[in-house]
Amino acid sequence: METEELENPWHVLAELIEAKYADGVRAFLEGLGALETARVISRLDAENQTKLLLLLDPGEAASLLEGVSDTQAADLIEQLPVKTAAAILDEIRSDQQADLLAQIPSQNAEAILSKMSPEEAVDARRLLEYPKNTAGGIMLTEYLAYPGGKTIGQVVADLESHRGSYADYTVQYLYVVDSAGKLKGVLRMRDLVFSASNATLAEVMIREPLSLQATASTDEVRAFFEGEKLLGAPVVADDGRLIGVVTRSAVRNAASEHATRQFLGISGIVGGEEFRSMPLMVRSGRRLSWLTINIVLNIVAASVIAAYTDTLSAAIMLAVFLPMISDMSGCSGNQAVAVSMRELSLGLVRPSETWRVFGKEASLGIINGLVLGALLGAVAMIWTRNPYLGLVVGVALAANTVLAVCLGGLLPLVLKRIKLDPALVSGPLLTTVTDMCGFFLVLSLATLMLSKLH
Amino acid sequence: METEELENPWHVLAELIEAKYADGVRAFLEGLGALETARVISRLDAENQTKLLLLLDPGEAASLLEGVSDTQAADLIEQLPVKTAAAILDEIRSDQQADLLAQIPSQNAEAILSKMSPEEAVDARRLLEYPKNTAGGIMLTEYLAYPGGKTIGQVVADLESHRGSYADYTVQYLYVVDSAGKLKGVLRMRDLVFSASNATLAEVMIREPLSLQATASTDEVRAFFEGEKLLGAPVVADDGRLIGVVTRSAVRNAASEHATRQFLGISGIVGGEEFRSMPLMVRSGRRLSWLTINIVLNIVAASVIAAYTDTLSAAIMLAVFLPMISDMSGCSGNQAVAVSMRELSLGLVRPSETWRVFGKEASLGIINGLVLGALLGAVAMIWTRNPYLGLVVGVALAANTVLAVCLGGLLPLVLKRIKLDPALVSGPLLTTVTDMCGFFLVLSLATLMLSKLH
Repeated sequence: METEELENPWHVLAELIEAKYADGVRAFLEGLGALETARVISRLDAENQTKLLLLLDPGEAASLLEGVSDTQAADLIEQLPVKTAAAILDEIRSDQQADLLAQIPSQNAEAILSKMSPEEAVDARRLLEYPKNTAGGIMLTEYLAYPGGKTIGQVVADLESHRGSYADYTVQYLYVVDSAGKLKGVLRMRDLVFSASNATLAEVMIREPLSLQATASTDEVRAFFEGEKLLGAPVVADDGRLIGVVTRSAVRNAASEHATRQFLGISGIVGGEEFRSMPLMVRSGRRLSWLTINIVLNIVAASVIAAYTDTLSAAIMLAVFLPMISDMSGCSGNQAVAVSMRELSLGLVRPSETWRVFGKEASLGIINGLVLGALLGAVAMIWTRNPYLGLVVGVALAANTVLAVCLGGLLPLVLKRIKLDPALVSGPLLTTVTDMCGFFLVLSLATLMLSKLH
Repeated sequence: METEELENPWHVLAELIEAKYADGVRAFLEGLGALETARVISRLDAENQTKLLLLLDPGEAASLLEGVSDTQAADLIEQLPVKTAAAILDEIRSDQQADLLAQIPSQNAEAILSKMSPEEAVDARRLLEYPKNTAGGIMLTEYLAYPGGKTIGQVVADLESHRGSYADYTVQYLYVVDSAGKLKGVLRMRDLVFSASNATLAEVMIREPLSLQATASTDEVRAFFEGEKLLGAPVVADDGRLIGVVTRSAVRNAASEHATRQFLGISGIVGGEEFRSMPLMVRSGRRLSWLTINIVLNIVAASVIAAYTDTLSAAIMLAVFLPMISDMSGCSGNQAVAVSMRELSLGLVRPSETWRVFGKEASLGIINGLVLGALLGAVAMIWTRNPYLGLVVGVALAANTVLAVCLGGLLPLVLKRIKLDPALVSGPLLTTVTDMCGFFLVLSLATLMLSKLH
């Protein structure tokens, strides 16, 4: 029994929720680690998830949601009455607020925004204006800004009197703005320690601080943080007004979300993350959307085989090698895709450098093609005791490897230039082309020397 | 000409290096962004890379290396004379120091360590003791620790007098240790602002601070930071001595490196990152090491086809559908692999929860199997004008999809339990099994109803 409780703690939680025993729920959740909490919540059914969030204070519910992934949190928010959703969102950090609202259908999001506290709603709307892949999309709107005329002593007093409400302000800088809200200077928190308390901020601040335009792309933001040893940078609107702060960790978060999308994309999970707690038909439908496109591409590639059934009938052992050529060429090409995507993301190659990549991959393709072609050719020769069949298979794999490696290296660059997502499109496009060429090479070579293959 | 210079700035840099014009090199590098710097350095040949690092001060060279990936930085370090390498490593942050040394063959690393400044070498060795996936492996050894008897005033004076050397200490906490170096308390930097300057640290500090064991896994460390709103946490050895600090950003870094390895692993890039600036034979050899294993697995799978050549000869159109069944089952399985790996990394599923995953994937597999089987069966029926062939293909794909989806969902869990890397092993193992079963299903079903397939 105890083991079962430890393995399936959500049964206990579900009972506590159904008994509406809020303090019990709190005590139970406190005993769980952060990872465990996410797991337990995802195992509750939708009804109990809603009841749980209603049972807790908005602040507590907000902390819970901050611990789970955005996709899951957005699902949970959507199930709630609009008023409760708004109260909880009021308590969530501004960057996650916008991330969650962006994942909720815009009508529902609008309904929630209209019930949120006016200041929080203004901040959230401001963040929603900017695409997720810009500085404005990943900034925080919780920051400390003061007029330059304030003294160090006044600021320290303000910080002291607002200690509680500033506790979430993780950035260790103070910003100085003019009466129009334009960014004029910056101070590090520790500069407060070393300055006379009657000095004004304008006297002590670093003037003309580095800042990011709200429309700067996350690539630019990342480059900025790689060049500067800062924990955070102010974000300004077109007119120079301070509107937020991008932290180094927000940049890392954005990069890791990008990596997750890449990983899921090349694995054929599209249209957002999938969790096994989602409804079966949603999971099935999203996976199928991808697979049905793939089936069409497969039919296109296989039609090459259908054109050569006479050759195949005459040398049936070729049928053994067709799936192998398809799989091996796909693997060679995918290696090159991965290297290109990695070099693109590190900025080591530009989308325009197609000739360089072509040269590098062609030379590697020739070596690997020769090795793999010789290997598979030898296997085919020994297996079928027919040197000509070995020759056909070996030459076809060698040539197709060169093609696959070059194409795999170039595809991410080309797709990036035409603004398609390399993670989603490279794989299927690559395998369709390499399958068609591979099948064509094997079967047309075999047709040429058909008399020797019997 | 100007375009060429903009596109290929490493030509300019190479000329400056060959002229040994250090100030020119500095001015040139300062004009480049961080991403651009990494690209330019990677395009220099090995000789000029070495000359560049020798031309700059160790501190400047260290900044350069901090901007490129660890794999590249380790390659650059290895090319240098031991003494220069040691001088540069002295200037690099402790966590990256250890990461670089870990990538250099241990004999060379030992030689470099022996020429480093004694304190830096002690710190680096301490970090090298701990595996990369533990708190000890990702901690920084730059932290501020004082005895509890010191007063706030003394600490502020010490901070002020060491402003320059403490500038890299990004963590915003002070630690209090006893005479044996054991962790006793912690203060936030801003607590200095609000405390009387004659108060002792022991009076002001937060007692019994949260800390991490050096041997804690990065999963545990991540769970710790998800639960606590801290920028950093002290790391203690078994005996309670403070030995380092893990920052929130180090945890994110570790997670993003893990994601990169996953992405490269499932794409068949093994044994570390590949950059196109590496020697051709190294790149080729590492890709081949993976492909040759794959060729063996392919031969195993294809041997199923070889056992059924009579059936194939009698119904040659089956050869068209074999590669399709192989590819479609592989894709269905890989989707399930990706979902499992994602849920594992988020802690939403435990490696022991095989039954839950099996149930979730089996139900999805049945739906998707029915849909895909019906689709491909219909295509086969129309294409070959033979309803029985459509039936064989459709039933085989349906059954194999169920198998692939269940296997794909379970493999990462099982591999994690037996401590194999799911990113590397799931894909090849999955496709080999699903290929064999898919080929067997099509060809054995076809053999059963061979009379109807002519």
